[in-house]
Amino acid sequence: MREIVIGAAQMGAIQRDEPRAQVVDRMLALLEDAAGQGATLVVFPELSLTTFFPRWWMEDQAEVDSWFEREVPGEATRPLFDRARALHVAISFGYAELTPEGRHFNTQILTDREANVVGKYRKVHLPGHDEYDQERAFQHLEKRYFEPGDLGFPVWRSQGAIMGMCICNDRRWPEVYRVMGLQGVELVMLGYNTPSVNSQMKAEDETKRLYHSELVMTAGAYQNATWVVGVAKGGIEDGHPLMAGTIIVDPNGFVVARARTDGDEMVVHACDMDACDFGKKTIFDFARHRRVEHYKRITEQTGVILPE
Amino acid sequence: MREIVIGAAQMGAIQRDEPRAQVVDRMLALLEDAAGQGATLVVFPELSLTTFFPRWWMEDQAEVDSWFEREVPGEATRPLFDRARALHVAISFGYAELTPEGRHFNTQILTDREANVVGKYRKVHLPGHDEYDQERAFQHLEKRYFEPGDLGFPVWRSQGAIMGMCICNDRRWPEVYRVMGLQGVELVMLGYNTPSVNSQMKAEDETKRLYHSELVMTAGAYQNATWVVGVAKGGIEDGHPLMAGTIIVDPNGFVVARARTDGDEMVVHACDMDACDFGKKTIFDFARHRRVEHYKRITEQTGVILPE
Repeated sequence: MREIVIGAAQMGAIQRDEPRAQVVDRMLALLEDAAGQGATLVVFPELSLTTFFPRWWMEDQAEVDSWFEREVPGEATRPLFDRARALHVAISFGYAELTPEGRHFNTQILTDREANVVGKYRKVHLPGHDEYDQERAFQHLEKRYFEPGDLGFPVWRSQGAIMGMCICNDRRWPEVYRVMGLQGVELVMLGYNTPSVNSQMKAEDETKRLYHSELVMTAGAYQNATWVVGVAKGGIEDGHPLMAGTIIVDPNGFVVARARTDGDEMVVHACDMDACDFGKKTIFDFARHRRVEHYKRITEQTGVILPE
Repeated sequence: MREIVIGAAQMGAIQRDEPRAQVVDRMLALLEDAAGQGATLVVFPELSLTTFFPRWWMEDQAEVDSWFEREVPGEATRPLFDRARALHVAISFGYAELTPEGRHFNTQILTDREANVVGKYRKVHLPGHDEYDQERAFQHLEKRYFEPGDLGFPVWRSQGAIMGMCICNDRRWPEVYRVMGLQGVELVMLGYNTPSVNSQMKAEDETKRLYHSELVMTAGAYQNATWVVGVAKGGIEDGHPLMAGTIIVDPNGFVVARARTDGDEMVVHACDMDACDFGKKTIFDFARHRRVEHYKRITEQTGVILPE
């Protein structure tokens, strides 16, 4: 038994005018809650410090940059690191990263239980578009404000387990879990800000969208025999509903814990990393069963090539 | 609207001593049923002509070969082709293929509505083992009696749609759907003989195994915006229960039709191939969103390489 008690820290809406310090106070309350329940790792959502600003069209780059962090830990996030260190709890959270070179990424970090950063991930699969789209019910400008992550899908050893990260739309892509699975991942941590409505398809209601979200995470967990902790933002943010639906999925693809609200809510589960072993040694023993000679299209072509 | 009415021809158990002619009679009855309901394509399970013989340890190669077809259409299967041609219904079914060169494959073919063979697939992901395994509750000797398929995952244009095939354990591997998805697949046809029991894990009951089966097919459908028709064998075959669970999945990953029994049963659904377009043009527009530079491990390594 290699148990890690994990807290999935769902967050309710963060309004556009809510200062970071106030958001961090909410995160601190969630952290205390999790620590009180014995968690040694707490995972927060994508862009956990601010509203999901890519829904807004902005032309002034200074305004865009105001949503980004120039350093982490920095002024706003230091209390989080300090308290996590004192509680001896590792944290992982998402934020908009502005590098010293002026590059913009949708980023998530992971610390150890001493609040040292052990891993950083930059979102690879940016959804949406990069110019104003009049046909959408609302904008989704991630392709405008971020560049695609340049770090791939690394994994790290921490707390005796092999951990990886991805962010929001990444979770819909089986390649993401597989690249980590091929590094023996046992725990995938991811956060999301998923609108309750499809901006291009009204008929796709929240129930269907929650189904899709759960489908891709449970499949990714099962097919790679890994824990998946999916942490949502929920509630009505700047007038736009987010679908919540935080879940913890075991390495057999079963949801073992889920949020019941669409607000700030701590979901805690004791996750045994040894539960990954059965799948990895039997049906998903990659070395024995994969046939890479037939997978070439996956890396040799990006888009569809239709048959003659 | 590009509608194809598809019949998923679930089959009940086929006992070891049941002659092929008798099995083909059952298939003919299913075919008539489907044609009567307007189907123009009927899909039968994996190894649809015989019992699932890889559960039996055999040392005599002549005995092994007796489960294989040397030609298709051949003596046993000709009535199926003749009747399909007369009914103007395309068929797809699985069988054990013995080539003129003496090679053994777990194969599925697809015909057009004139009963001409338009496609052949040979199972790539063979589960199980190749030597007698005393620790298993029963044997699963696919790796002994077959070699892995050598045709990859091609697709074919037929009835105005782009169609592909895979078989049983293949359905658990996201690479399979993706390789076909990258060729624009709109319909994946697959059959399976899945035991109700995990030979290596008693606690995994039939409900869990049905969940896994549905999970991988619904995820494959959604993540590639394709129809998936999964056709089972069910019932107690040679004393061993098969889990049935035939389903038809739409390109949004929703099950739209399912078998209610574990015996011979026809499941018919009118599948609109145009329903694939939305997913392929938006969230799973591969050309716009995939980042192959970060997928290299998927084709460059077969097994797990652990981090340092």
